[in-house]
Amino acid sequence: MNKTYEQLLPYMEKSYALNTALTLLSWDEETLAPREGMEFTSKAIGTLSNELFSTLMNPELKKLLKKLSEEKEQSSLSECEKAVVKNLKKSFDELEPIPQKDYRLYSELIAKASSIWASAKAKSCFEEFAPTLKESVEYNKKFAKLRAKDGQEPYDVLLNTYEEGFTMEKLDEFFGKIKSAVVPLLQKVKAKNDCIDKSYNFRHYEIDRQREFCRYLAGYEGFDFNRGVMAESEHPFTTNLHNHDVRITSHFYENNLESGIFSVIHEAGHAMYEMNVSDELTLTPAGGGSSMGMHESQSRFFENIIGRSADFWLPIYGRLQETFPEQLSDVPLSRFIQGINKAEPSLIRTEADELTYPLHIIIRYEIERMLFHDEITVDELPRVWNQKYKDYLGVEPSNDAEGVLQDVHWSGGSFGYFPSYAIGSAIAAQIYAYMKKVMPFDDYLREGNLTPIREFLRLHIHQYGSSKNTTKLLQGMMNEDLNADYYVDYLTEKYTRLYGLEN
Amino acid sequence: MNKTYEQLLPYMEKSYALNTALTLLSWDEETLAPREGMEFTSKAIGTLSNELFSTLMNPELKKLLKKLSEEKEQSSLSECEKAVVKNLKKSFDELEPIPQKDYRLYSELIAKASSIWASAKAKSCFEEFAPTLKESVEYNKKFAKLRAKDGQEPYDVLLNTYEEGFTMEKLDEFFGKIKSAVVPLLQKVKAKNDCIDKSYNFRHYEIDRQREFCRYLAGYEGFDFNRGVMAESEHPFTTNLHNHDVRITSHFYENNLESGIFSVIHEAGHAMYEMNVSDELTLTPAGGGSSMGMHESQSRFFENIIGRSADFWLPIYGRLQETFPEQLSDVPLSRFIQGINKAEPSLIRTEADELTYPLHIIIRYEIERMLFHDEITVDELPRVWNQKYKDYLGVEPSNDAEGVLQDVHWSGGSFGYFPSYAIGSAIAAQIYAYMKKVMPFDDYLREGNLTPIREFLRLHIHQYGSSKNTTKLLQGMMNEDLNADYYVDYLTEKYTRLYGLEN
Repeated sequence: MNKTYEQLLPYMEKSYALNTALTLLSWDEETLAPREGMEFTSKAIGTLSNELFSTLMNPELKKLLKKLSEEKEQSSLSECEKAVVKNLKKSFDELEPIPQKDYRLYSELIAKASSIWASAKAKSCFEEFAPTLKESVEYNKKFAKLRAKDGQEPYDVLLNTYEEGFTMEKLDEFFGKIKSAVVPLLQKVKAKNDCIDKSYNFRHYEIDRQREFCRYLAGYEGFDFNRGVMAESEHPFTTNLHNHDVRITSHFYENNLESGIFSVIHEAGHAMYEMNVSDELTLTPAGGGSSMGMHESQSRFFENIIGRSADFWLPIYGRLQETFPEQLSDVPLSRFIQGINKAEPSLIRTEADELTYPLHIIIRYEIERMLFHDEITVDELPRVWNQKYKDYLGVEPSNDAEGVLQDVHWSGGSFGYFPSYAIGSAIAAQIYAYMKKVMPFDDYLREGNLTPIREFLRLHIHQYGSSKNTTKLLQGMMNEDLNADYYVDYLTEKYTRLYGLEN
Repeated sequence: MNKTYEQLLPYMEKSYALNTALTLLSWDEETLAPREGMEFTSKAIGTLSNELFSTLMNPELKKLLKKLSEEKEQSSLSECEKAVVKNLKKSFDELEPIPQKDYRLYSELIAKASSIWASAKAKSCFEEFAPTLKESVEYNKKFAKLRAKDGQEPYDVLLNTYEEGFTMEKLDEFFGKIKSAVVPLLQKVKAKNDCIDKSYNFRHYEIDRQREFCRYLAGYEGFDFNRGVMAESEHPFTTNLHNHDVRITSHFYENNLESGIFSVIHEAGHAMYEMNVSDELTLTPAGGGSSMGMHESQSRFFENIIGRSADFWLPIYGRLQETFPEQLSDVPLSRFIQGINKAEPSLIRTEADELTYPLHIIIRYEIERMLFHDEITVDELPRVWNQKYKDYLGVEPSNDAEGVLQDVHWSGGSFGYFPSYAIGSAIAAQIYAYMKKVMPFDDYLREGNLTPIREFLRLHIHQYGSSKNTTKLLQGMMNEDLNADYYVDYLTEKYTRLYGLEN
């Protein structure tokens, strides 16, 4: 092993251990921790975050990373080691401009924010969350300005954190293309919606049975319970300590069958990405998924492209019917498939169909952008949110819980994250187009054999962790760059077919 | 604040944060973590333990503690600060003789041991656990020898860790007294056992309903769910991050009603101790319960003295019957009380009645003592265990799961802990004798009003955390030292009455 690289190991080990502790503390807060505990526990989180900061900002580490980035040293590193150096340097560069004291206070704030958000959401009261959100936005503005390079806009700094190379300029083009396809398509679809009756979805579905079916479903999809855990939280999410300990949450509603099912398929998609990272990478700074866009491509590939297809449900719909005989025996598979794909403007992003989904993302993108350009204040968020929903989707939230408070992201300080979902959907469509060419994709689904599909994704994407970025992964797989046309074509083709529209 | 003391704060803060992380990792392993995850997670645990070791072994901290132990500095410290210095110094002294590398390796071993034990227990296969246990015993022998002062025996070092000042000499006397009272009493009781039919306890009790009733029961006892969490694990236990985040586990069996109920009452007793520690102490090294004996006194006070009394069940037995109408409608309260107190030799410590319980402890004490005096090897444990059960209780385990593998303690490296249960029972009986004199104890129970009882314990014991030891707490409460006679009298009186024996 390269001698300089060897000197990195203790830093990596320590930052991995501290990250593990912080990840578990955060998982615990979302899933289990008692309501009144966080005030004190956040102090420990502040101390551990501070310790992580000190570990990464060690001047010795800075020297090592600089040296290892030079060509001479690079030539003696393995591919995996190069990726580790690159990612560690990225973390270093992101953290270096931030004052240590601010980082600690911000970490403590975020540790407490999620339970404040959850409580505010339960009461549907934005005002209760606003002070925390204001603080978080101020920290993020400050950090983004400090991290900005060469006159970079602060919001571009945030976007780049989740998807390397993405800027408002690129996203404007990307979203413009999608909007110009989706809006007219949605008009045609809405005109035909009366013939789809999905009232079955809002019957009463016992939570226990949903839980049981969704455990089966996650396993069917490929989630390995020997290396993973399923729990429940206000907002579904995936996290992991390493590739042998991957955790997903779901949230079940008594009067909405789809919500639980598709959040489980979605999160299990994320989970398989992490489970399939190679052992060589897992405990290193290159051990997680590549970008958030790439991560969302995997979750949304399973949720939508696979999970909303008739082929996927063919072998298992009977089991769902058996789980809920009273609710579903009069709903044949064909009607269920129409129901889970019915495109209609709605209030909740996580429950949106594939066609209206990107509009939910565009709304959040535009709002965050205004917020970070000081064009609106935190207090104005509910009003702006509701107005945008009216403008883009023609629906209006009747309260904050189904409006501006619906998503967990802002409570976690994840500003600039939302576009990852749309980028992910686009990548998923592009991968799907390619996979259909190289394997009997639909046959596999109909046979209930997801192994070759998973194995393909493991081989071309998952195993590499974050040692390759989105561009490299797509190039490696199909010799192409990200191209949003596939997504537009996919949506157009799918909805034209489903709704029997004229081409 | 004393200037020297102020310099302690960063060390306390860091060791508190690392302890919080390690506590949560351990809780997670016992309750939730996926089976195959621990191999990698234990590396993070090793690193964090190593970091804790470095924090506590800092030469600067040593100097500060030495200075603060001097009379001049002590005079300017508050009572709380004095306790903090004393406890931190105790941790320092316990750790100092141990080589850092060994400490880390041992921490990693213990992190993995619990799942190895659980798996071995599930298969009832001691051989599968033996190699891990051997390693752990070797480490503990080595550490005890390194920590021994003035020719102290290694096993005395371990005993002293859990109960200050306790030695084999003291315990021999203590157990001798108990044995000479219990053994003849048990003979008389056994002769009359035919008239107590507790077959109802082994009917089929749905786990879900047990869980629901036990949640109610914990709340009835005083467990505050806003500051606590209840989960399930192979072996019930209590842990806490601080006084606002206290966690208990239970384990329910379909064919044994008592097991779940009394483990919940027991663990909730531990939990209330931790919940009632004062805010001033909670995040400090004096923030936990006093000794393990004192801790077990609280759990066993609730489990036995309160929890097995007719007065306790009078207001709530109806609810238990409503929860299990098919199983309990033909069991009147009087028969239930006889059943939960029936004294008969059995295999499982946690399910033992009050009378045979100390014999289970004596067996473990004698075995550990032989093990640490090199009189037996790890491989001989199953044979010795089974022989002792035959000798003392007249019963013999048919497999390791109901024998030597039944307890979690050894997998956690807790050698020398078991006597705490008997010490705890003795303290509980002594406290009970005093409380009956100063308050209408039985009336409170019959009225379903546990508040004055809890409040008395909070005021005289809980609030002080570990700022006072057992002797000081008992002296402060009743102006007496620990006296095992109360325990002997309590058992004699209780069983004489229950079984209608001649005095």
